[in-house]
Amino acid sequence: MLGSTHGTLTTTSRPARVVACGERPGPAVHGTADGTEDTDVSGRPLRSDIPDLDRLFRPETVAVIGASDAEGRPNTGITRQLIAWSERVGARLHPVHPTRTSVFGLPCHPSVRDLPERVDLAVLLVGDPLPVLEELDGSKAAFAVAFAAGFAETGPAGAAAQAALADAARRSGVRLLGPNTNLNAFERFRDDLDGPAIALITQSGHQGRPVFALQELGVRLSHWAPTGNEADLECADFISYFATRPEVGAIAAYVEGLKDGRAFLLAADRAARHKVPVVAVKVGRTEAGARTAASHTGKLTGADDVVDAAMRQFGVIRVDSLDELQDTAALLARARPPRAPGVAVYSISGGTGAHFADLATAAGLALPALSAAKQAELHQWIPEYLNVANPVDCGGHPVGDHRGRKIIDALLNDPSIGVLICPVPGPFPPMSDKLVRDLVDAAEQTDKLVCVVWGSPVGTEDAYRTTLLGSSRVATFRTFSNCVTAVRAYLGHHRFTATYRSPFDTAPRTPSPSARKAQELMRPGEQLSEHAAKQLLRAYGIRVPREQLVTSAAAAVRAAGLVGYPVVMKASGPQLAHKTELGLVKIGLTSASQVRDAYRELTDIARYEGLPLDGVLVCQLVGRGVEMVVGISPDSLFGPTVTVGLGGALVEVLRDTAVAVPPFGEDHARAMLEGLRGRALLDGVRGAPPADVDALVETVLRVQRMSLELGGALAELDINPLVVLERGQGAVALDALAFCH
Amino acid sequence: MLGSTHGTLTTTSRPARVVACGERPGPAVHGTADGTEDTDVSGRPLRSDIPDLDRLFRPETVAVIGASDAEGRPNTGITRQLIAWSERVGARLHPVHPTRTSVFGLPCHPSVRDLPERVDLAVLLVGDPLPVLEELDGSKAAFAVAFAAGFAETGPAGAAAQAALADAARRSGVRLLGPNTNLNAFERFRDDLDGPAIALITQSGHQGRPVFALQELGVRLSHWAPTGNEADLECADFISYFATRPEVGAIAAYVEGLKDGRAFLLAADRAARHKVPVVAVKVGRTEAGARTAASHTGKLTGADDVVDAAMRQFGVIRVDSLDELQDTAALLARARPPRAPGVAVYSISGGTGAHFADLATAAGLALPALSAAKQAELHQWIPEYLNVANPVDCGGHPVGDHRGRKIIDALLNDPSIGVLICPVPGPFPPMSDKLVRDLVDAAEQTDKLVCVVWGSPVGTEDAYRTTLLGSSRVATFRTFSNCVTAVRAYLGHHRFTATYRSPFDTAPRTPSPSARKAQELMRPGEQLSEHAAKQLLRAYGIRVPREQLVTSAAAAVRAAGLVGYPVVMKASGPQLAHKTELGLVKIGLTSASQVRDAYRELTDIARYEGLPLDGVLVCQLVGRGVEMVVGISPDSLFGPTVTVGLGGALVEVLRDTAVAVPPFGEDHARAMLEGLRGRALLDGVRGAPPADVDALVETVLRVQRMSLELGGALAELDINPLVVLERGQGAVALDALAFCH
Repeated sequence: MLGSTHGTLTTTSRPARVVACGERPGPAVHGTADGTEDTDVSGRPLRSDIPDLDRLFRPETVAVIGASDAEGRPNTGITRQLIAWSERVGARLHPVHPTRTSVFGLPCHPSVRDLPERVDLAVLLVGDPLPVLEELDGSKAAFAVAFAAGFAETGPAGAAAQAALADAARRSGVRLLGPNTNLNAFERFRDDLDGPAIALITQSGHQGRPVFALQELGVRLSHWAPTGNEADLECADFISYFATRPEVGAIAAYVEGLKDGRAFLLAADRAARHKVPVVAVKVGRTEAGARTAASHTGKLTGADDVVDAAMRQFGVIRVDSLDELQDTAALLARARPPRAPGVAVYSISGGTGAHFADLATAAGLALPALSAAKQAELHQWIPEYLNVANPVDCGGHPVGDHRGRKIIDALLNDPSIGVLICPVPGPFPPMSDKLVRDLVDAAEQTDKLVCVVWGSPVGTEDAYRTTLLGSSRVATFRTFSNCVTAVRAYLGHHRFTATYRSPFDTAPRTPSPSARKAQELMRPGEQLSEHAAKQLLRAYGIRVPREQLVTSAAAAVRAAGLVGYPVVMKASGPQLAHKTELGLVKIGLTSASQVRDAYRELTDIARYEGLPLDGVLVCQLVGRGVEMVVGISPDSLFGPTVTVGLGGALVEVLRDTAVAVPPFGEDHARAMLEGLRGRALLDGVRGAPPADVDALVETVLRVQRMSLELGGALAELDINPLVVLERGQGAVALDALAFCH
Repeated sequence: MLGSTHGTLTTTSRPARVVACGERPGPAVHGTADGTEDTDVSGRPLRSDIPDLDRLFRPETVAVIGASDAEGRPNTGITRQLIAWSERVGARLHPVHPTRTSVFGLPCHPSVRDLPERVDLAVLLVGDPLPVLEELDGSKAAFAVAFAAGFAETGPAGAAAQAALADAARRSGVRLLGPNTNLNAFERFRDDLDGPAIALITQSGHQGRPVFALQELGVRLSHWAPTGNEADLECADFISYFATRPEVGAIAAYVEGLKDGRAFLLAADRAARHKVPVVAVKVGRTEAGARTAASHTGKLTGADDVVDAAMRQFGVIRVDSLDELQDTAALLARARPPRAPGVAVYSISGGTGAHFADLATAAGLALPALSAAKQAELHQWIPEYLNVANPVDCGGHPVGDHRGRKIIDALLNDPSIGVLICPVPGPFPPMSDKLVRDLVDAAEQTDKLVCVVWGSPVGTEDAYRTTLLGSSRVATFRTFSNCVTAVRAYLGHHRFTATYRSPFDTAPRTPSPSARKAQELMRPGEQLSEHAAKQLLRAYGIRVPREQLVTSAAAAVRAAGLVGYPVVMKASGPQLAHKTELGLVKIGLTSASQVRDAYRELTDIARYEGLPLDGVLVCQLVGRGVEMVVGISPDSLFGPTVTVGLGGALVEVLRDTAVAVPPFGEDHARAMLEGLRGRALLDGVRGAPPADVDALVETVLRVQRMSLELGGALAELDINPLVVLERGQGAVALDALAFCH
């Protein structure tokens, strides 16, 4: 059954390796062209194949297992809908039912074994899809859709049943959609709409309905993938597939949980390489949302800050609500790349311009001041006392005559402007009707983006429904904020993809020389002593203070002489944390007698507290710098993650940290620092010199390397503080905690 | 002309002192019942009068100055609109024009002196309204509206012309609306709508249009005040007036800038006392927005964080966009007070419930888990495998039959639930039509709040336009996020007003004994020395370390003996800031010789840096605590403000501070601390004991008292750090900067 390639290959100008369905026995073969595995040093795949899902979405032959035409049975409605759909698209449909000879006049087959031909798609309407799936194999069907609920979303027993389904699919070579899904893929799509389309992925059918309804506003939809519980086919497969389809302008996704973090990153990476925007609502901002989502499709939602970081790294545009999903996906699908990053705001009211400029600027959009020459040009048509610097206020009257169009054209031909936004708070027909007509006409003759916000809460006005929605060139919004969100995403997407370099291309494939040294330091299931943790850092070229581990006062004095006064002394042992609070750190010791006293005091405290020590560390006193924290934490979805932030005593209170999912490059490590609230500390405040940011970035990258190479052995790492010295002086890890798996 | 009370007094159950127009010669007479001034210790009013604006909004006689029926003149359209309006409401209209004998068939008068009767309202359509206003007085007109633009929004010359207008209005006793305003107050309001109404205030006509259009969705509007440049009547006057009108359920305001901070606070205070919600968009989140707004109506937008704080203190609900303004004002106007704070989310899809719960919980709404008994009750109608804990997922089918209504009623009669929200992501007529019918019916029979989110981007569906909008009992939204925003505002408003105690009632009216002592320390135009600043604090009972100012090394040693070793020594002088960075602070000196050395070193550095000293401070070393900052900063709109936040070296980097506008009470001082990101520091972290929050709050209140009593003399105060010791140990101001006016 393998190799039965029945799907037509996607023809697209984009580079892509499309794998016909059935070629792939399991869910994740990540082979290189020469057949070797292509994985990073952590053993995770560096590429994914693109499943060929053409025949899932456009099947020519369909079997309906459990078809019915009996009055009152739920399957009857579904069967009727599928028959209607098949007639509409010209597919052959074969009902399957053990006791019926015909269903709605079509000849019915007793079992899938009796199907007259191999089908592209088997729709499983039966309560338990497992036996049917076991009877199917790649010679009988390419795809199956399982409707039944009651799997992983119900608890452990359901999860086991779902695993059995996934196994059966793997064995049979039939790719499975579901279980716990529906017929959304076979809804009635409008085929009279032109232009790039939105492809929709949802883990809940109802949640996709608003995006689907965009067709009624003239926005084309090409696909709807209701992924359900994702026993086999998952969100990432659909992103990968849609990213290579020429008709898809943007992918919109409603996600409750992800099945496999790496698969999602690889799919997002593919979309980024193909410059196809992915806009996603991801539930799980809060504990309550995550819990409820888990009980809905049985998936983990993941730690939200990590999901958020992963999406940002790979250019996935995360939005919070379905209306933002609609508006952002619709804009990104249809708008051409921006000619310039500048936004011009034009309105018939100074108040509207001020308000919109306020929201836009707060969101980070750039509203460049128009040149003096451009302003003079605009003042040919706009009274002198009105502000035309940007936002441009025409006062209203000019829109009513020939001046209206001239103002719009003057703005569109300004080379600093890539986006023209015209917010219309509410209909005022004497002005707004002519205004939107002019905008629609002008949009036809420019390759710049023209946006209109039609702020009326009513939305039945002719200027809106006919003039604006009748144009596929004007992006129409209903609220200021959604327009701002979508335009920011649009400019951000093009900026991101223009410079995108996949971190998978440069991810390490083989262990560094550091890795072997580090592996020897690992103590399975244990927390390493500070000394051992620092040796680990040293193995990866991360600087630590000169230090010696000693087990007598005399040795301490000798060590201090070697390390050089003044010294710091700390108790070292496998179970120590929060040493400062316990009095287990002595700073600035300047003489042998102080060192001897400190040794006694530290060992006394440890004995008193019942903390076993492996000795006392005598360390070089490091100069002042900015205290940061750099670490590795595990994530259930994405594996080891890397964190950097403000360190020292305030770290737990302020939680001013950024997290990233490996692999990431140097640019991203720098971007993480830019996002810190306390960023200015690194630039030098109150007379302090600028800190060695390069050394900090280098440390973050070395820690990332540790996370990739030691991820299986190293559960958690916490360098706190990492003292970042003056520029050119490096960074030193003063203390470190490490936990082994 | 004074005392010509022609307005009918508002009859309302709410306590209010309504002042008939014309009674008030100037804009702000704040008299007590016995005629004495009622001001706080800073000299600012503690109460405002309620202007009687009945005859502005419902004039029985109108004069139109500059009336025209000549083809093509802008005034012709306005005149026509006013005549139509007058006919509709039964008002008598008198055109005034120097050369016409009739306008649209109405007899025309050459000047306002020739008007046949005193008019309620004079509409000034002339280019320069000043001469007309000077001819008018209270015996000829009660109100005037000036349309002309070209005043404060154009710059200094315009501002002077506007001041002249304001003067003329004050002299004449005619209350003036405008200039730079329009006819919005006399639009055609629907009079067929019932229930509490929205009263609308806008500083830009176009920006009010979406709220006005709510009437087309069945929401009643009672007034629209387009305040323009506010030469005389200002936003605060309308808030005060609307807050006492029985038909007004909520006030919606679009604000670009405020004319008078205290007047706004007093108006908001009145609305809070009357439990009338004020929902406001306030432009000026960003520099760009503030600048543009200023050029639009010529008002200051104020420092945004201060405006934000002031609004929160007095319960004004600030929203960012016009659609939030619509939805929040509409809900607050019409919904009865909540019976319980709990929110139940009910949907036909687990995904929708999870998503909505996520957004709602993130916004701070409480979704209490339903009791086991209630869940069992729901499971009579909802399959066992679906989650009904809250959010409640019915799976869809139950809505189609008798179970649909039973589920809704069961949720509404749960005593923990005050709000039922049913998000419908998109129309699915077989289910959603019946669902919304049941919700509309159920809402008629409950006093709890029922909200529906109709998520379709289309909005022409019958279930939406007829069923939902036809109900005045169901609050209908189009987006999840606006529903969450509005419900949060609704619950927050009722919680706020239930416990509101006006800070004006307890604001100090007379100076404390501290004030005289403090006034003696003021040095006009100068920065005080640290020592003098600390004396100022001491005068207000704020603890400072034991310290002595000395001018010789010998005196320093004597002082150290008195203060007690170890000591801190600091240079003290009028121009010192950032002493630590300059090396002008020595900490932990333990002997006479160290004190002598320190004295020499400090005076050497000061000499070298050219900094005049008034001596050296020898101070008690204060124990460890949490370093906070407390201070006074001036605000152009609200006068002196009080700030509290994280102190120490990080204060400038992290800016973790809260600001408040006096007067405020102890509860608010505590609330300011709750909002700090670093709040946990005060609870004690890493083994530190909880800090003396009571002492911190007391310090904030004492600083507030300083700001009120010394506001005219003390420009700025900065206590940094204020060391908050262990609970019960107090708080000590280690350093302070003070600038005099």
